[in-house]
Amino acid sequence: MKHFRKDLWMLIPGRRGYVNITSEVEDAVRESGIQNGLALINAMHITASVFINDDESGLHHDFEGWLENLAPHEPESKYWHNRTGEDNADAHLKRQVMGREVVVAVTDGRLDFGHWEQIFYGEFDGGRRKRILVKIIGE
Amino acid sequence: MKHFRKDLWMLIPGRRGYVNITSEVEDAVRESGIQNGLALINAMHITASVFINDDESGLHHDFEGWLENLAPHEPESKYWHNRTGEDNADAHLKRQVMGREVVVAVTDGRLDFGHWEQIFYGEFDGGRRKRILVKIIGE
Amino acid sequence: MKHFRKDLWMLIPGRRGYVNITSEVEDAVRESGIQNGLALINAMHITASVFINDDESGLHHDFEGWLENLAPHEPESKYWHNRTGEDNADAHLKRQVMGREVVVAVTDGRLDFGHWEQIFYGEFDGGRRKRILVKIIGE
Repeated sequence: MKHFRKDLWMLIPGRRGYVNITSEVEDAVRESGIQNGLALINAMHITASVFINDDESGLHHDFEGWLENLAPHEPESKYWHNRTGEDNADAHLKRQVMGREVVVAVTDGRLDFGHWEQIFYGEFDGGRRKRILVKIIGE
Repeated sequence: MKHFRKDLWMLIPGRRGYVNITSEVEDAVRESGIQNGLALINAMHITASVFINDDESGLHHDFEGWLENLAPHEPESKYWHNRTGEDNADAHLKRQVMGREVVVAVTDGRLDFGHWEQIFYGEFDGGRRKRILVKIIGE
Repeated sequence: MKHFRKDLWMLIPGRRGYVNITSEVEDAVRESGIQNGLALINAMHITASVFINDDESGLHHDFEGWLENLAPHEPESKYWHNRTGEDNADAHLKRQVMGREVVVAVTDGRLDFGHWEQIFYGEFDGGRRKRILVKIIGE
């Protein structure tokens, strides 16, 4: 069995944003030399997500409004978590809806994807550098 | 290390529906000959889900109403994604709540499940053939 | 390839609650002797979750109010699932938001975690013993 590990670094200037990281993950699969196995891609921070959906800017706009409706940033005081001095309780909730991680099959040295599948980093509390972990096992 | 891959094809005639795919996945585990490892089961389409919950029709009815409340199909015009000519923005959101994939342990050649765990395909934009990927690695 | 399996048992006295299980999972990684691989940690019950977020009691209070708003326990009669004699339809929905499982990388014999990542069991229909599965594969 082979194993491979790589960090990806993200810096989203605003509070929230979505970045397509598919090509970085494909690079990692190539570097790993693994032909068949499983790739785990996860946010290493608890106010961010890694998820798979469509690379369409209108949809990302819809995500933004939808998540803000499900878990509004304001009023900040309504969240007990924010009494600790934080202002990011909503980000912890949004990340639960969008998920921490994806697991993707590796087949014949490539991400085994449907036609429209793309991997995104979702940031809900930006403004500082954060990490994504890519771990691949297989042979 | 062994690895095994299989597609499952789905065709849901209406817009939305749930199908129990547990026995197809169990068949795949048997075909794989893998005794201990991990099985990934994921929708290859971004308006569908694979998830684990109860095989009870009342609950599936509750899922339908609940998801429609969280991410309504209408009015279609409220979603920017639908300005691209699509009418399925809500399906992309519903799929985030229900998830893209499950990872299940394989132990002694079987899905290592709790008593009530069953695997479902959830369709949120049906009417055409779609694929599920089963990838199993182990020994 | 090595593989390792372990059950963790939970008993939450009330209907809902969150328990940090990170040290139990770290123990399992140590027992497994696996240095590099993937660890799957999943609820074996369909009214409970395993998820990764912050070990902060204010946030857990926020989860409780947020989930109760997204999928209220009452009125029980509004859920078709509860016509089967159950009263836990809301628990099946809450578990979808919080997720069934997490997959965590194992690197150099340890959980490969970001600074704040902690693993939690989330109970939404407590009062009886339930199981979590830890399955680790690697070498």
